[in-house]
Order: sequence, then C-alpha cells, then structure tokens
Amino acid sequence: MTASISVALGDRSYDILIGPGLLAEAGARIAPLLGASGGGRVFVVTDETLESLHLEALKDALDGAGIENHGVVLPAGEQTKSFVHLESLLDAMLDAGCERGTTIVAFGGGVIGDLAGFAASVLLRGVPFIQIPSTLLAQVDSSVGGKTAINARQGKNLIGSFHQPRLVLADTGVLRTLPPRELKAGYAEVVKYGLIDDPAFFDWLEVHAPAVLAGHEGAVVRAVETSCRAKARIVAADERESGQRALLNLGHTFAHALEAEGGYGELLLHGEAVSIGLLLAFDLSVELGLCPAEDRDRLRRHLDLLGMPADLPPLPGGWDADRLIAHFAKDKKVRDGRVTFVLARGIGQAFLSPDVPAPALRRVVERALSRAGVGPR
Amino acid sequence: MTASISVALGDRSYDILIGPGLLAEAGARIAPLLGASGGGRVFVVTDETLESLHLEALKDALDGAGIENHGVVLPAGEQTKSFVHLESLLDAMLDAGCERGTTIVAFGGGVIGDLAGFAASVLLRGVPFIQIPSTLLAQVDSSVGGKTAINARQGKNLIGSFHQPRLVLADTGVLRTLPPRELKAGYAEVVKYGLIDDPAFFDWLEVHAPAVLAGHEGAVVRAVETSCRAKARIVAADERESGQRALLNLGHTFAHALEAEGGYGELLLHGEAVSIGLLLAFDLSVELGLCPAEDRDRLRRHLDLLGMPADLPPLPGGWDADRLIAHFAKDKKVRDGRVTFVLARGIGQAFLSPDVPAPALRRVVERALSRAGVGPR
Repeated sequence: MTASISVALGDRSYDILIGPGLLAEAGARIAPLLGASGGGRVFVVTDETLESLHLEALKDALDGAGIENHGVVLPAGEQTKSFVHLESLLDAMLDAGCERGTTIVAFGGGVIGDLAGFAASVLLRGVPFIQIPSTLLAQVDSSVGGKTAINARQGKNLIGSFHQPRLVLADTGVLRTLPPRELKAGYAEVVKYGLIDDPAFFDWLEVHAPAVLAGHEGAVVRAVETSCRAKARIVAADERESGQRALLNLGHTFAHALEAEGGYGELLLHGEAVSIGLLLAFDLSVELGLCPAEDRDRLRRHLDLLGMPADLPPLPGGWDADRLIAHFAKDKKVRDGRVTFVLARGIGQAFLSPDVPAPALRRVVERALSRAGVGPR
Repeated sequence: MTASISVALGDRSYDILIGPGLLAEAGARIAPLLGASGGGRVFVVTDETLESLHLEALKDALDGAGIENHGVVLPAGEQTKSFVHLESLLDAMLDAGCERGTTIVAFGGGVIGDLAGFAASVLLRGVPFIQIPSTLLAQVDSSVGGKTAINARQGKNLIGSFHQPRLVLADTGVLRTLPPRELKAGYAEVVKYGLIDDPAFFDWLEVHAPAVLAGHEGAVVRAVETSCRAKARIVAADERESGQRALLNLGHTFAHALEAEGGYGELLLHGEAVSIGLLLAFDLSVELGLCPAEDRDRLRRHLDLLGMPADLPPLPGGWDADRLIAHFAKDKKVRDGRVTFVLARGIGQAFLSPDVPAPALRRVVERALSRAGVGPR
C-alpha cells in the first residue's frame, strides 16, 4: 500500500513515497538514484533516538543493496539545529571524504532533516540529499518542499536555504515507535492542511483523527498522503515562497514567537506551538471580523477532543505580551517592517494579510495569556 | 568610459559595470534595484583596509541617493573566510534587522565577496546582494559567477553556495590604492583567461601587461573587461559547474594545495598560488606529452618578466610532495575518488582531464620542489 506523490519542480522534481515497510526497502529505492556506475556513496545523518530504534534496519537495507555508507549520530532535540552542530556535521562529512557525488541521507525528524538538508546544500556548494522522515511532523511537513534551516539567537529557522531532496521515503511503520506526545505534535501540521484550503479533509479528520493518532495504518497513510499532496501542490506552484507558499505558515508566526520565548525545549514542542498558533490565527481572524466565531470554536473543539494543546502552558516567570509581539517583527516574512499574517475567512479559507492592525493583535495575545492564566507574575 | 557586460542567467541575469569612478556613482546605480517603493535598505560588509581608504566615499554615495544603509567592518585577510566570522556576520545582520528585502553589499576583495555572498545566500534562506570588488582579483574573478564560500579545516572554499549578485560595480579607480603585490596576485587570474581559450588576449598581455600593472587606465579597463566577458560567457553556459566551467580552475588544484600547506597567509596570496599553479598545470601537460614545451616556457618568461611568482617560496620546515599530492584528493572536483585536472594542449587550449596518471603528477611536483630548492629538510 505504498502511495507515491510527484513534486513537480522541473529538473529538481522528486517522488515522495508513503507507506509501511519503506525503511526495509531503502537500499532498493535509493540505489537507482546513485548514478549508473553504482559507485555513489551515502552519508547518513541521524540522532541518538533513531540510532537505538531503527538505524540498524536502515544500514541493513543499504548494505543489502551494496551501497557504501558512512554516517554520524547527533544528539536528539531542537538544540541540535544550531551553528555549532552545523559546523561539526560539515567537519564530519569532509573528514569522511564526502564528494560532490556523495548523497546525504537525513534519517530523523524535522531537526535532522533541516540540519542535514542545510549541510547538504552548502557542502561543496551542494550535494544530493534524501529524506527519510521518522516523525509525523517531518513526514507531512518539514521533509517536503526543500526548506532547510538552523536556528539563530534571534529566532527559529532564520539561517538556511532551499535545497530539494532527490527522494522522500516516509515509512509510516516507523511512527509506531514515536512517543504519543510527538505524534500529536505532528498532527497539528496535518490539521493545518484542512484549515488552509481543504474543508473536506477537515471534515474527514473530525471523524478519523482518533484512528490516525491510534496508529491505524489506513488512516495514517491517508492523512500523510493528503498532507503531502497538499504541500507538494503548493510548493510546486511557489517554490521559493514569493506568494501562496506562505499559506503553509498558518499559525506559525505565533508558534515561532511562543517557541522563542519558551526556549525551544520540552516546554513546548514545535507542533504543540503550531497547535496553539493555529487557534490564535483563527482567534485573530475572528477579532478582525473576518471569520465566523463558530469556525474558531469548531477548531477548538477538535483540538480539545484529541487532547491537543490550545492554550499556552505555564512558563516559569510567566509569558509577556510585549515580548511575544516583539518576536513577530523578526519573522522572516517581514518586508519593509510590516508583518504578513496568515488569517482565515473560515475553515479551509486561509489567506495572506500584510496589514494586521497592532491593537487587534495585542488584544488577541493578551486574551490568550489571561485565558490560560499564564501572564507575568 | 564605463564598460557594461550582461551575464545571461535567465531571471538571475545581472550587469557588470567596469570603469573608474563607479564608487561615487554607487548610490545612483544601486537605487533602481531596491524596489519601486525606494524603501529597500542596504547592509554593507567591508574590511578594515577598505574602511580607512574608501568606505566614506561609498557611504556618501549611498546617503546621497537617499539609501538607508548599515554595515559591519571585518578584519582583512583570508582568516576571515571562516565559520566563526560567518556566524558573527549573520548575527550582526539579524541584529541590524535585515529582512528579505534588505540588499547585502559586499565591498572588498575576494574574501569579503565570498563571505558576504555566502551570508546573503543563507540569511532568511537568501537575500539579494551586490558586489563592489576592490581588488583586481575580485574584479576579474571572484565577484563574477555567483560562487560564494568559506574555508574549512580540510581545504579552501569547501563550504558555500551559488548565489548570483544583482549587480557588480568594478571601480578600476579603486585599484590605485591596491598594494602592488596584490595587483600582481590578481593578474594571475587575468592571464588565466588568455591561457584557457583566448590566445589573442595572451598576445595582447605580452605587450600590455606592464601597462596594466602600472595602472594605465585604458589597459586596466580592457584587461578587466576582457576577463569578465570570458568569465561571464563560461558561467552563462554552465552556471553550476557541471562541465566547462571547471576550466576556470586552471592552475587551481595546484594552487589550493599550496595554500593549504602554506597556511592561507602572507607566505602565499591566492593569486600568487594561482600564478605558480598555472605554470605547474602547463608543466604537467608537457610531462604528459600533451603540450609543446615552448608554450610552457613562453608562459614562464611572461611571468618572470612581470615579477610574478613561478616557483614555490621557501616554507618553514620545507614543502613535502606527499602532503601536496594528498591535498589534490580533497579537491571539490573529485568524483568517485578521481581528481579532474585542467590541462592544456597549448596557450589558449585548456581542457578537462579526469585521468591524470599518479606517477606523472608526482614527477611534476617533485621537480617543482627540487627546482625551487624548497623540499623537506
């Protein structure tokens, strides 16, 4: 039951394969991309969590196909998406003798995919890479579309590149070992596609999301496939985010601010921040009179039913509205000092708004803090 | 007497302007590229040498055109093309509030152009940049073609990107303040274009190179223009170096090994290493029976006449043939373990050779060490 999606980007086009058991097929799937001579090597970047669970299976698959492979294991966690790890990763690649024909394989979640993809884009001015996303979040979002990045002191993903993978292998079987908290966090990006422009998908999720989160194979594959198709379509139309691709950032301007203030740690996973951010984006849309309150409330009920975060968690020292608002101004989408927000006229009707009035934004943020009882002490 | 060259790269096409006095026109030349609103800002990256000589003139030109400008001054020298300076430069850009619409201006030699261009390519996944090259080397080589890079412990330019500038302003008047040693170093890249595929240019240089190095304006502009035209033509045909662009590396595999062993410092400037490398490439071509010895000797006479380096300088501890040869294997052009050298069938007849026999290579390197009397002690 492997689903296949083509991302149409001219000579940078590639396939996304989705289904259980793809890890065991990795060698056979990758070998045809390594050049007719078969001499191409791969360098696998993964993290300590994957190493203990699945790295041997991947290595067996590569060895079985006769693919020479080396690799490096990095610490798990958002802190790894840093300048210091980028430097040490590039150092390891060069020490391992990586050449222009070496293919980098990113085997992990969004952190590994973003970091390894960025390293692949700047190593020798660009070498091929392949994504094997191991989390729901990476399978439906970060592994598709060619965005790579590390975080800066000033904010998330502020340094990076566009570098399309040659292949994405999304083994939904690997999700069985994903902690429930991470599965839910990834689900925030799934529901996002329904909210952007696919109300029928949102309807489907209202019925089937519990099955997705319980790991029912058919439901998982359909959720991942629908998400990837949506992202592939948007990316193919706007590879470098000059326009509509920015819709994929629904909820993310809020999420990035929450993560920056929360410290990119265990307090709030990226997907959890997105879950809260989606609701804030709808709340802002309601505040501006653009969206019926019922649509926001329907989203809130859906998140609550699944146990998804909708309110800000307590932060030591409390959250501060001014500090959150100041982060919006550092968003990558800022042009000429104006922040573009993704708003919605309803479920499945997202749009870009370059001119959100500051007072409305402040009201929404302050209301969120007061609702959660997590303001400054 | 401003010369203008178009680099034809589709939607990434740009102009190279060459002539005296362009620095004073920088504001008027740049303003049209900053967007119709005129709200675009620039962030100038330069080094301490340029700061003391010409930065005020550039700032005056930008201020005079009403262009909001910020900037940073970095230490001069190859050591600045490092990971640590890349990180601090990106940090300064983000602290200064650079956005996707901010244009990075690289004002300096190859080090500043390569570093600032690389930073521009990864800041917010890519912002526009403009080159104002201040050395002969940068004007004829590194500022044209979109290659950006920093050095790694394992070798020069091993980490970087392709990021085309929006405009190149080559003010030949600025070369008047360039130390003679650096002017000569840059000349190595000028004569390279004659050696690759333009024997008539080499003939012209045999007559006029002394005027170029003495700073005669007409000769300088013609040398820079001919060089840029040659590079623009090769780059337009092969932007990402899948083929013929590698001809531009004539002499560079040798040069990079010499620089790596020599420590990227005052011992050997990049252009000086290239000067020696060009002769070694011809020597290797003669050794392989591909090139008449007269052509190599004609090149040697030309370099000697101008006081250009042709032999390795003394190195504390001596040069070691094995160590130099080991560097070739780390070259970016290595594929499947084989080094591609640029060889020549004569002056103006360079070509790529993927299969240079190791014994011939060793003989050429050992002969160079013995000729200069600079082998191991």
